[in-house]
Amino acid sequence: MAGGDDLKLLGAWPSPFVVRVKLALSFKGLSFENVEEDLGNKSELLVSSNPVQKKVPVLLHNGKPICESMVIVQYIDEAFAGTGPSLLSSDPHERAVARFWAAYVDDKLVTSWVQSFRGKTEEDKSEGTKQMFAALQTLEGALRECSKGEGYFGGESVGLVDVSLGGLLSWLNATEEMSGTKIFDPVKTPLLAAWAERLRELDGAKLAFPDKDRMVEFIQKRQAQAAAAAAAAASEK
Amino acid sequence: MAGGDDLKLLGAWPSPFVVRVKLALSFKGLSFENVEEDLGNKSELLVSSNPVQKKVPVLLHNGKPICESMVIVQYIDEAFAGTGPSLLSSDPHERAVARFWAAYVDDKLVTSWVQSFRGKTEEDKSEGTKQMFAALQTLEGALRECSKGEGYFGGESVGLVDVSLGGLLSWLNATEEMSGTKIFDPVKTPLLAAWAERLRELDGAKLAFPDKDRMVEFIQKRQAQAAAAAAAAASEK
Repeated sequence: MAGGDDLKLLGAWPSPFVVRVKLALSFKGLSFENVEEDLGNKSELLVSSNPVQKKVPVLLHNGKPICESMVIVQYIDEAFAGTGPSLLSSDPHERAVARFWAAYVDDKLVTSWVQSFRGKTEEDKSEGTKQMFAALQTLEGALRECSKGEGYFGGESVGLVDVSLGGLLSWLNATEEMSGTKIFDPVKTPLLAAWAERLRELDGAKLAFPDKDRMVEFIQKRQAQAAAAAAAAASEK
Repeated sequence: MAGGDDLKLLGAWPSPFVVRVKLALSFKGLSFENVEEDLGNKSELLVSSNPVQKKVPVLLHNGKPICESMVIVQYIDEAFAGTGPSLLSSDPHERAVARFWAAYVDDKLVTSWVQSFRGKTEEDKSEGTKQMFAALQTLEGALRECSKGEGYFGGESVGLVDVSLGGLLSWLNATEEMSGTKIFDPVKTPLLAAWAERLRELDGAKLAFPDKDRMVEFIQKRQAQAAAAAAAAASEK
């Protein structure tokens, strides 16, 4: 890291989008100050740094805010181009392919995954689950092309798509553990399952990922709160 | 344009996303072959070039496909870095700000705008309209900061956000003409209204924008088709 660079991350540890930024910082070997936000009572710094969304993650680089996880990840790669490995290739076509898949992760996988637990009806939720597995199947194909099946979406080393999808990994793994259903299924999506194993073992990922048990506990608590809220709403009808 | 570069755009003239790519090519001074797709009967070339989405726009550069409008726009800027003006600043922070607002246009403006006419109920549609005007108000603030009120989102010259929002302009203007309601309202969002006027007058935009009357006719036909389909569905209930 260049001398005098001050990096402060406003985040919340369970957020997959915050984990993306931590992965990027970690893979680039950049040290940063982690500021844990209370999302029920957001800090003045968060609100003033991201007045449009008022959301984490926000990266402050020498006091200047950058918002939106994948915008931050690209910023880190560009502002610290001389530090650590590059997350994006120098070839414009390879960059475009990586951006396409990173957008796919957000547009198709994140959307359907959220629908799978926040859908308005049970039917809506199962449609989300179905779409999520279809998106994973498509990503399996992308990984086969990008990595020749043995590496990462970024080829031999991690890149933009690994960070984008990798950010979701802890949450998805915790869900797997709770439900007993494999999301990164070694039979249906063997390359993705092996990719997830490989990514988890990287030193950079170990630094960025939240503890699995803590993650499970957090999701269980949230689910209990959601169930209680739903029961309360039903009793008022 | 570098000698030997072959650029072919698979598009459909009324698509705002195709117009974005045409704007980028046009602002960069790049000539290209325009291939008009029949979206009811997509070409083998389109399907094989964009197997995941099977959607326009697709740019073929020396036969290599690039998909997703804003991925293509960034590709054009990077692959032809030495040709014409740059759509993204060389400063990483300014690039991040531009990417943030380009994402905002897609996530907030496009989504609410689509909801305003495709919403499932009348209530859903008016919620879309409300959100669309709120997003435009936010973009008014962004334009004030980026341009000091007198230029473009890219500052003194057009950039990524001008292309992103500019792509929607012809469709929004046609809607304004048909409904009599100003979307780029000179009272509520004076800077955006003036920006739209300025953009429309640029030679690059004139080359990229579809003819206004043709656009109005196209939307009227689509609305009539949608109304007929809704009436047919209602009569079957």
